Amino acid sequence: MGIGIGILGGGTVGGALVRRLVDNRDVIAAKTGLQLEVLRVGVRTLDKERGFDLLPGVLTDNVADVVADDSVEMLVEVMGGMDPAGDLVLAALRAGKPVVTANKELIAARGPELFQTAEEAGVSLLFEAAVGGGIPIIRPLWETLAGETLTKVMGIVNGTTNFILTAMSESGMAYKVALAEAQRLGYAETDPSSDVTGVDAAAKAAILAGLAFGSWVGADAVYREGITGLDPVDLQFAAELGYVVKLLAVAERTEEGVNARVYPAMVLTHHPLASVRGARNAISIEGPAVQRLLFSGPGAGGEPTASAVLGDIITAARELRAGTLVAPRIRLADGGVADFGDVSTMWYLRLMVVDQPGVLAQIAAVFGHHGVSIRSVRQECSGDEATLLIVTHSAPERAQQAARDGLRGLGVVSNVAAAIRVESTES
Amino acid sequence: MGIGIGILGGGTVGGALVRRLVDNRDVIAAKTGLQLEVLRVGVRTLDKERGFDLLPGVLTDNVADVVADDSVEMLVEVMGGMDPAGDLVLAALRAGKPVVTANKELIAARGPELFQTAEEAGVSLLFEAAVGGGIPIIRPLWETLAGETLTKVMGIVNGTTNFILTAMSESGMAYKVALAEAQRLGYAETDPSSDVTGVDAAAKAAILAGLAFGSWVGADAVYREGITGLDPVDLQFAAELGYVVKLLAVAERTEEGVNARVYPAMVLTHHPLASVRGARNAISIEGPAVQRLLFSGPGAGGEPTASAVLGDIITAARELRAGTLVAPRIRLADGGVADFGDVSTMWYLRLMVVDQPGVLAQIAAVFGHHGVSIRSVRQECSGDEATLLIVTHSAPERAQQAARDGLRGLGVVSNVAAAIRVESTES
Repeated sequence: MGIGIGILGGGTVGGALVRRLVDNRDVIAAKTGLQLEVLRVGVRTLDKERGFDLLPGVLTDNVADVVADDSVEMLVEVMGGMDPAGDLVLAALRAGKPVVTANKELIAARGPELFQTAEEAGVSLLFEAAVGGGIPIIRPLWETLAGETLTKVMGIVNGTTNFILTAMSESGMAYKVALAEAQRLGYAETDPSSDVTGVDAAAKAAILAGLAFGSWVGADAVYREGITGLDPVDLQFAAELGYVVKLLAVAERTEEGVNARVYPAMVLTHHPLASVRGARNAISIEGPAVQRLLFSGPGAGGEPTASAVLGDIITAARELRAGTLVAPRIRLADGGVADFGDVSTMWYLRLMVVDQPGVLAQIAAVFGHHGVSIRSVRQECSGDEATLLIVTHSAPERAQQAARDGLRGLGVVSNVAAAIRVESTES
Repeated sequence: MGIGIGILGGGTVGGALVRRLVDNRDVIAAKTGLQLEVLRVGVRTLDKERGFDLLPGVLTDNVADVVADDSVEMLVEVMGGMDPAGDLVLAALRAGKPVVTANKELIAARGPELFQTAEEAGVSLLFEAAVGGGIPIIRPLWETLAGETLTKVMGIVNGTTNFILTAMSESGMAYKVALAEAQRLGYAETDPSSDVTGVDAAAKAAILAGLAFGSWVGADAVYREGITGLDPVDLQFAAELGYVVKLLAVAERTEEGVNARVYPAMVLTHHPLASVRGARNAISIEGPAVQRLLFSGPGAGGEPTASAVLGDIITAARELRAGTLVAPRIRLADGGVADFGDVSTMWYLRLMVVDQPGVLAQIAAVFGHHGVSIRSVRQECSGDEATLLIVTHSAPERAQQAARDGLRGLGVVSNVAAAIRVESTES
């Protein structure tokens, strides 16, 4: 007996998914014993070439119908966006139908409400594809590492920005040129703002933090900076200092609580995230027992994302067959949210200073006053002005900020031309 | 109500596991809702300092008692070896108790029989820790990637040999010196034969092949070569040619069937496995949809391995609580086993040849006769003899072997001093 599946969304992911479900039907049945049947596919508009064939009546532009259809036992939501996806997912859960979604925005914003609804209905809400595209990360984090006390999760979770940063680092392209190249090759959308300002990565950071620490931070509480202000000269200096600049999603458990943040930061060239190039994603998971695990793979794209969705569909199908939950429930506690001002990192600063004796002493005094110690200084002269590259030791965000404000008030510092965090374990 | 756990083995992994179960009891309960109770721990001998405290009567040297104890609902086998582990695992399964094991040797040798017994008893047999230590790989491979048609799995799955090879490559140490260093630091056992001859990696290759392709190859069918014959000079030449030598476990699906093999091979320096240093493990998974996924982390050690075991224990506990299987069954089909002679790879050869005109033509003719084409040649002269470094294009094992035999028959070739496979996608 088959398992009836309703799919919302017929775009890149939905299309790839439908093709896989139809083409691999027998392979999946042999491996899992499950007959998966695509019964309804809800799309926004019917008059579009989709690249897949379905029996008459399967494709519909009435998305609510897909959820309501009695033959649909499981809902797969790959349409994206908050609305109407959120209400449709809730309706399916309330109707006792397990839901598989790739919607990071929805999970990050309404996770606890959705998990609660799923629990009350006694069905699963699965979202392996919401973070890391085709990389298995959600289930390993929540299920395989369930007994761990994790300390930090750090990843490159947005392929668009990693493609742009790789181009800027390796070819010296300006941000706008690299963005145009990413758009030309299909790695960036016409409106790239969700990617380049870190909104997409912040949703994923919120999800990673919630699962890693069992305490929901929520997308709104994620500190966020994008890559639009980066100057390729700093990526060049980073390389000379032994670093690579990446847009990082970081989730960390500190004594003050859980913190999640997204910003461009330098990592050492021998850090495993440093070698993740182009549109690939990678996530590192740290804890005292597991030390450091690294998962990497294609972070987006129809086929990889469809893979993750398909794995979840099989789990949900097993659940329907078993008549009981087979995936672990998402249970959350309130672990508190750490103030971003308390988060400690190292910083790289590029200062334009007057080239005269005693300047460095004045600068060092400002850092010292704010309790920030200097790790390295490099000076490059050109005429009356000198460029000073400073890397600090680790200190809280608020102290680092105050030190920079202090520098701006110094007569000898004409400009704090760049300030980029460094994510590195101090040695 | 707690879940009663019986553990077999109180060594490095067992000790770490007992400590984690006792120390993290409340954390696990909060995150999963499960109270895990260590009721019996079976060890070989009672008069040994264990580094953990248990209530009187929990520790026993009667291992059969642990399985038979009615209060033990789940068996955790971390004693290792085929005997008595195999019969104890079977006894537990037959008694309807789910089993968690870290025993790669047992799974590789008796997998299908154990899976069958588990299925008949309606309980799970979980073995996340059998491959890759603390790296989540078994469940992602079998569950998250259940809908994939994978083509190749390739990994560094033995930390001892990777430590030795890293030392040989980076410090130019001879094999025996690097082995002694590994033993001194605790990365290699006093009797290192299972590691250095590839027996350990072959068991893991068999398991990876079985799960990746749903067709059991079995440890005996894994082609195997160890690292004992490697000369550091070839690791040096490899570096000059842009390669790194790693002991690889490879599972591949070809048109002729599934093949699993373990041997030292060169990978390009920019291949993600090339940068895996020391005792770390890493596994790459390839398929048309997922492209290439990479999982890396600590491949051995008590704490990381205990992490993987603990994840499985939680799954088995959920299963006991649910009263039905929550982990997917291992279903195997017979996909056929490919003849190793049909497996195609590139080769690196180091030849000692007479330094006279026409030698290369004779050598090229031998390769051509056997249908092997040459990709690159580098010659280094020293007196009357020259060293020839040849990298071939990809060709079947049997043709490559015949070509080498042909070279040995040439008067101008005094010695085929080294022959190492190259695992690389031809570009």
